[in-house]
Amino acid sequence: MILIKEIENFLEEDLRDEDVSCTLADSKNVHAVIFVKENCVVSGIEIAAAILNYLGISYEQKKAAGETAAAGDVLFELNGDFVAILRAERTVLNFLSRLSGIATNTREYVTIVGGETPRIAATRKTTPGIRKYEKKAVLDGGGDPHRQNLSETVMIKDNHIEVMGMERAFAKAKRQTSFTKKIEIEADTKEQALAAVKLGADIILLDNMSPGMIMETVKLLEEHQLREKVLLEASGGIRKENLKAYAATGVDVISLSAVTNAAKWIDISLDVIK
Amino acid sequence: MILIKEIENFLEEDLRDEDVSCTLADSKNVHAVIFVKENCVVSGIEIAAAILNYLGISYEQKKAAGETAAAGDVLFELNGDFVAILRAERTVLNFLSRLSGIATNTREYVTIVGGETPRIAATRKTTPGIRKYEKKAVLDGGGDPHRQNLSETVMIKDNHIEVMGMERAFAKAKRQTSFTKKIEIEADTKEQALAAVKLGADIILLDNMSPGMIMETVKLLEEHQLREKVLLEASGGIRKENLKAYAATGVDVISLSAVTNAAKWIDISLDVIK
Amino acid sequence: MILIKEIENFLEEDLRDEDVSCTLADSKNVHAVIFVKENCVVSGIEIAAAILNYLGISYEQKKAAGETAAAGDVLFELNGDFVAILRAERTVLNFLSRLSGIATNTREYVTIVGGETPRIAATRKTTPGIRKYEKKAVLDGGGDPHRQNLSETVMIKDNHIEVMGMERAFAKAKRQTSFTKKIEIEADTKEQALAAVKLGADIILLDNMSPGMIMETVKLLEEHQLREKVLLEASGGIRKENLKAYAATGVDVISLSAVTNAAKWIDISLDVIK
Amino acid sequence: MILIKEIENFLEEDLRDEDVSCTLADSKNVHAVIFVKENCVVSGIEIAAAILNYLGISYEQKKAAGETAAAGDVLFELNGDFVAILRAERTVLNFLSRLSGIATNTREYVTIVGGETPRIAATRKTTPGIRKYEKKAVLDGGGDPHRQNLSETVMIKDNHIEVMGMERAFAKAKRQTSFTKKIEIEADTKEQALAAVKLGADIILLDNMSPGMIMETVKLLEEHQLREKVLLEASGGIRKENLKAYAATGVDVISLSAVTNAAKWIDISLDVIK
Amino acid sequence: MILIKEIENFLEEDLRDEDVSCTLADSKNVHAVIFVKENCVVSGIEIAAAILNYLGISYEQKKAAGETAAAGDVLFELNGDFVAILRAERTVLNFLSRLSGIATNTREYVTIVGGETPRIAATRKTTPGIRKYEKKAVLDGGGDPHRQNLSETVMIKDNHIEVMGMERAFAKAKRQTSFTKKIEIEADTKEQALAAVKLGADIILLDNMSPGMIMETVKLLEEHQLREKVLLEASGGIRKENLKAYAATGVDVISLSAVTNAAKWIDISLDVIK
Amino acid sequence: MILIKEIENFLEEDLRDEDVSCTLADSKNVHAVIFVKENCVVSGIEIAAAILNYLGISYEQKKAAGETAAAGDVLFELNGDFVAILRAERTVLNFLSRLSGIATNTREYVTIVGGETPRIAATRKTTPGIRKYEKKAVLDGGGDPHRQNLSETVMIKDNHIEVMGMERAFAKAKRQTSFTKKIEIEADTKEQALAAVKLGADIILLDNMSPGMIMETVKLLEEHQLREKVLLEASGGIRKENLKAYAATGVDVISLSAVTNAAKWIDISLDVIK
Repeated sequence: MILIKEIENFLEEDLRDEDVSCTLADSKNVHAVIFVKENCVVSGIEIAAAILNYLGISYEQKKAAGETAAAGDVLFELNGDFVAILRAERTVLNFLSRLSGIATNTREYVTIVGGETPRIAATRKTTPGIRKYEKKAVLDGGGDPHRQNLSETVMIKDNHIEVMGMERAFAKAKRQTSFTKKIEIEADTKEQALAAVKLGADIILLDNMSPGMIMETVKLLEEHQLREKVLLEASGGIRKENLKAYAATGVDVISLSAVTNAAKWIDISLDVIK
Repeated sequence: MILIKEIENFLEEDLRDEDVSCTLADSKNVHAVIFVKENCVVSGIEIAAAILNYLGISYEQKKAAGETAAAGDVLFELNGDFVAILRAERTVLNFLSRLSGIATNTREYVTIVGGETPRIAATRKTTPGIRKYEKKAVLDGGGDPHRQNLSETVMIKDNHIEVMGMERAFAKAKRQTSFTKKIEIEADTKEQALAAVKLGADIILLDNMSPGMIMETVKLLEEHQLREKVLLEASGGIRKENLKAYAATGVDVISLSAVTNAAKWIDISLDVIK
Repeated sequence: MILIKEIENFLEEDLRDEDVSCTLADSKNVHAVIFVKENCVVSGIEIAAAILNYLGISYEQKKAAGETAAAGDVLFELNGDFVAILRAERTVLNFLSRLSGIATNTREYVTIVGGETPRIAATRKTTPGIRKYEKKAVLDGGGDPHRQNLSETVMIKDNHIEVMGMERAFAKAKRQTSFTKKIEIEADTKEQALAAVKLGADIILLDNMSPGMIMETVKLLEEHQLREKVLLEASGGIRKENLKAYAATGVDVISLSAVTNAAKWIDISLDVIK
Repeated sequence: MILIKEIENFLEEDLRDEDVSCTLADSKNVHAVIFVKENCVVSGIEIAAAILNYLGISYEQKKAAGETAAAGDVLFELNGDFVAILRAERTVLNFLSRLSGIATNTREYVTIVGGETPRIAATRKTTPGIRKYEKKAVLDGGGDPHRQNLSETVMIKDNHIEVMGMERAFAKAKRQTSFTKKIEIEADTKEQALAAVKLGADIILLDNMSPGMIMETVKLLEEHQLREKVLLEASGGIRKENLKAYAATGVDVISLSAVTNAAKWIDISLDVIK
Repeated sequence: MILIKEIENFLEEDLRDEDVSCTLADSKNVHAVIFVKENCVVSGIEIAAAILNYLGISYEQKKAAGETAAAGDVLFELNGDFVAILRAERTVLNFLSRLSGIATNTREYVTIVGGETPRIAATRKTTPGIRKYEKKAVLDGGGDPHRQNLSETVMIKDNHIEVMGMERAFAKAKRQTSFTKKIEIEADTKEQALAAVKLGADIILLDNMSPGMIMETVKLLEEHQLREKVLLEASGGIRKENLKAYAATGVDVISLSAVTNAAKWIDISLDVIK
Repeated sequence: MILIKEIENFLEEDLRDEDVSCTLADSKNVHAVIFVKENCVVSGIEIAAAILNYLGISYEQKKAAGETAAAGDVLFELNGDFVAILRAERTVLNFLSRLSGIATNTREYVTIVGGETPRIAATRKTTPGIRKYEKKAVLDGGGDPHRQNLSETVMIKDNHIEVMGMERAFAKAKRQTSFTKKIEIEADTKEQALAAVKLGADIILLDNMSPGMIMETVKLLEEHQLREKVLLEASGGIRKENLKAYAATGVDVISLSAVTNAAKWIDISLDVIK
């Protein structure tokens, strides 16, 4: 859900105290279109629509979040006061460009994998201040947003294990966390993974393992009849080039920071129609 | 200047209500380092330091904003409570990675140009919510941040001219704006550029012109002895490949959205030291 | 984690514009104690300490969150400016009283159950504005906070099933939710429970069932060898009087809104020491 | 008056970043009712209506604040998008349940007293963050909200008198406070009460006195012909059991923290209508 | 009490995103003084000190709020980073100048009256956003701040009486307001004043009456032996020129919007000491 | 642009928690007018309209910002709920009175000058919290708002020059600031002014110079053929009495803090129409 205070904070950053560049315009009704200049998977539709609504601009939405758009396709037809459209323009386009970039990028990874499994997941490597929008863009691209923050899903990482030991960390997590949340443990070796599953972890993060190591880990868990008990997530060193190899290891999820932080912006423009 | 409320908003996004992933850790003093894993120009130092301060973590800063760092170089040595370091980690790294990416990317463009002129400038195509940090990263990379928002520097763009005409738009801008601000007019042709200079614009945005067209525009202004009266900014269709050609046209500034929105994230990590 | 803006919002409600009742006091250093006037389980220690810190009051904390205190026991010894202590007093005491009330109430339910299983869990029936503190109080009392909000753990309730059907609801939830989150389905009959487990729900909420019905449901799941696959949560109509009967049914969790909304306030006072 | 920012803060606590539990629902128009499951005095109507409005849900309000409702009575008939109703549900119900609990509880005390005098008043022992709503609930129950905060009505309490003496405290209060505000002094003995009236206090708080002591105090003031000059407020140790005895002492007001902090929640539900 | 969020909002208005005018300065320790350039009564000391503290600037305060200062007198000696001092400068001086202007202006009215009675009171005609500071300045000047807002002290004005009648308005006010608050009624004639006192109003606002009319009103109340029951406040058409005449009428309070809205700014400067 | 959060912050200051003074009124539709009681130039129309809108009050606007109004002229005709009008009244009137005061005051200075040049400009000496409105009032009065904050237009003042030297300060400013911003340097002598122009400053602030000194400075710049290169702003010691003398010196701008901080409030009232 998008709150008015969010919209105001984003607009305020671009408009500030006087916004003469907008107010010098004549207040008169104009038509405009927002259209993409390159093929993409569309995202950011909800925040764009919320900003247009806030500014009293009527619109017809031509594409839904997650749909593909071809160069030239219109996302929104607008009808509103010229000053309001100038106020909306940059913030709306920045959201659409950044978020469609993430959705498009995610879709590429999902397409390489080719099926439902493994899922392509994001990480917490997102731009500060707009994580929920970037996570939604991953979903729009067909990926899995992964956890939103440090309160959702407990993650026991190498630094925890280093300082506290896996068992103590897990016991504390179990005690301090609701049964409604999953607990994930990071493992660097198949033995660690096995130990983590035995402790009762819901998810194992196989960190920086080669496809071969992962397959051995899967095998070890199968031998102990524990494979069904957990979800396996592979992460670290995975690129488009080796993605198919990782996808073939039998893991449930592949998470990549590249999904969000290597996404390029999609070129999207607003044109006033004469 | 970085306000406490900004820091709290950024941290809150990552921590939310319980942050069990942090609080399950033992509260004990640890040493840690933040280091880069690839060559880069460093940015985000100020917001990183502000977050560390807020969380009561002592640090020694090893690199200044705008300095280059080689793979393995340490940016900060930390000393603080393990829980606090876990709380700071992701938000600090996301800022450093995103902003150093922009600074590094900017530096590449600046280096191609080779001298002080033309300056490489950013645009308003920045991630919503953190523009002032992204603009600072451009500065750290040796570029020019360009205007922060619609209240600074009046820009009369194609859409204004389309709807109002250049003369009326300029007259209204002049009337509504302080003498302390510059007025910039977008021009698509050399004739438009000449007209804009005659009106008294401080800056002309030469939009989507080829290097040849720009040189003709410069020449035309020189013929009218008006070249000294304005700053010329080239924008649109400029890439690394043709940057030197544009730099040779005699413009004062080249602005590119790619400076911010095609920047890749720098790989930066935090390690707890045993 | 407790943010400065939270502390300021809470204090502001009690102080408002002039707070003459505080500022009429002489600014001089005084000693004071915060002590309980009845037996209880202590909670609210963190927010109390944060408020004292914010106001520059030194304190020695005599009880940890989750510890029991007997009538007369001191929670904090204070040393600070009289005006600051008057400013802190009511807000600190209101938090301690309300939250210790919840912790104490939770402990009673936990004690009746007698062992680790089933866990006593809260619900989302909390006072608007301070949920994270009330959830922490449940944890301090030995209970399980359950989910914090509608973004954590997807819950498919009777109203969803009514409108959409269980299968469609589950399929949409699965598609829109990260693998990092559990999905819970509400069931009114043992057949619904079985269907929900077969769909792949992580948790089944057995709503308003008698102990007998729950035992039959457990049995049915055991017969299908699906008992180990899910967590069972009983809810609705459970009171102290019948709690032991529910605890004996074999469920994993018993959740009660009474844990938070039938808690009484603990009588806690602040005395200035001559 | 209820501000949009308040509504957003309350909703945000329950919805957070994704609210999948809501968005998994089909967006379609549904009818629903909010109804009470036990007899009560209704409160929270204004904030409930404000939240429904904010979320674009149409409603017909069937009960006014302060009215009694019998088990089964409907408070609101709703008509709106299913997703919006799920978003509103918990926050609306939590307010209605908590606040109707306070109104109902207050009404019981008022009924015991039986007439207009003495008034039953609340204290500042309210849940942090929603005081103005809890005070309004006291009013809806027929009670007196007492002062909202430390800026309204100066209160000179035992701790002030202990540290500063009554005379100095009163003199400072008089000097620092507007003539538009009343000044109240706490008295533990009839002699203190007399002294306070002579100083010019508008209200005397008779703290922890027995009904007999209070009657003696009233008598003493009458002997000095000062009874008409002040309002007398009794507080401390007053319970339902001894309320009639206190009501018979001739005080103007009886204030009890129990009015707010011993109120139980009223069971109120929302049902979607097929 | 001054909150960090207030300080940040005020500073943010003056600094915005880059504050190059500050950061271009060398970061080095400097001494500076804040001094008055004309005789005045000092106010704004608390907010000035809070801003200096927030920015880490050490200071020695040379004048207390409410003290008189002669041209050339120093209010604060500062020692801190040059950049921080530049950041503080304008906001600190604007507060000191505006608020000392109000205090000085108030003192003039108080001096004309010459004694303790009648008090000179402000109104709600204050600059939006800084009322609590302007009210405090009135207090510093020796005046009475009057009510802070519409929740403190119920005021029944001509518009209420026009629409509802005095009796109904008073009855509603009495029913909806705590006994802890005073109720004031506006009267245009001595008959209205008498009626208002009989109803039980705590304060009568004698609006736009001549000194003669007020004296008649006082006399009428004395005849009915009701003068002691109320405070009388004169307002409307009172200027320095006729203030002594009004002061001689026997009213308790004279309120004037001029106290705040006709105050001139005091010339106050900051000088860096070589 | 005026945000909802601004409106809510301003209203909240005047209404606070209960606003009984408003809610005691009957909720019924009334007509009202806002009218001026003295001749003035109107300002504050936009914020007044925004507050009326927020509170659901219909209005007809009879005067535009910057228009003159004669005593008795109506600014707004209102139609709305009586309670809402009482809520809006004081905040709307305070803005209109303060801002029309500034516009009227500015207009007087502009009228004395008589032509387009020099412009009358404001300074940053504005009331904390409402600067953008006060700057707009200057514009409505026919003046120039000057820079809004320390991020717009770099100003190198005496304190900078004192500590850093003019050349270093200018070089740092140039390096840290975008080409889109002007740089202004303060000069106390004609030699300093010449040096500043030679450095490349866009504007020279001639501080505390007599008209004679300014004319000599202009002459010196003309001799160096540099007059056309800069804007000259005179400031310090300029009053209505000597304004014409300064206007005759040939400067482009005269800036005066008196424009904002010596403005008197315009008497503006709201009357409910029977």
